[in-house]
Amino acid sequence: MKVRVEVFLKPGVLDVQGKAIEGALHGLGFADVAEVRVGKTIAFDLAEEPRDKAEARVRSMCERLLANMVIEGYRLEIAP
Amino acid sequence: MKVRVEVFLKPGVLDVQGKAIEGALHGLGFADVAEVRVGKTIAFDLAEEPRDKAEARVRSMCERLLANMVIEGYRLEIAP
Repeated sequence: MKVRVEVFLKPGVLDVQGKAIEGALHGLGFADVAEVRVGKTIAFDLAEEPRDKAEARVRSMCERLLANMVIEGYRLEIAP
Repeated sequence: MKVRVEVFLKPGVLDVQGKAIEGALHGLGFADVAEVRVGKTIAFDLAEEPRDKAEARVRSMCERLLANMVIEGYRLEIAP
């Protein structure tokens, strides 16, 4: 099955990369760009198994490796 | 309007970050994880305008700043 995990900084945590991109886009003339947030997406394949079991395993991957739960949150998409 | 841009390495370009994550997940016991690819997601707000105009502007942002078109591709999502 196909898994996609999106990891973003939690709201309220300063996103310096986002601020840098916002400044650069303003400099290029895109003045209405606002609230830029940068995250990472991790996409991978997983062996077929029941969806709830896969979801529990992916949550464990996120909490143990993919996201820093102190400052980051994550969102999952699992497709067969 | 809400814009989300996903930037991924093109297929065939070695994704070293993905390989590192794959190795680490195997080490944690998730042996069936395969084909890990890591990308970045840039989410931002844009002033309201017709969808086709917004899309053309966001494509220009991607090609000028957000993606390195030699090795990366991008995917857009624009929501009102």
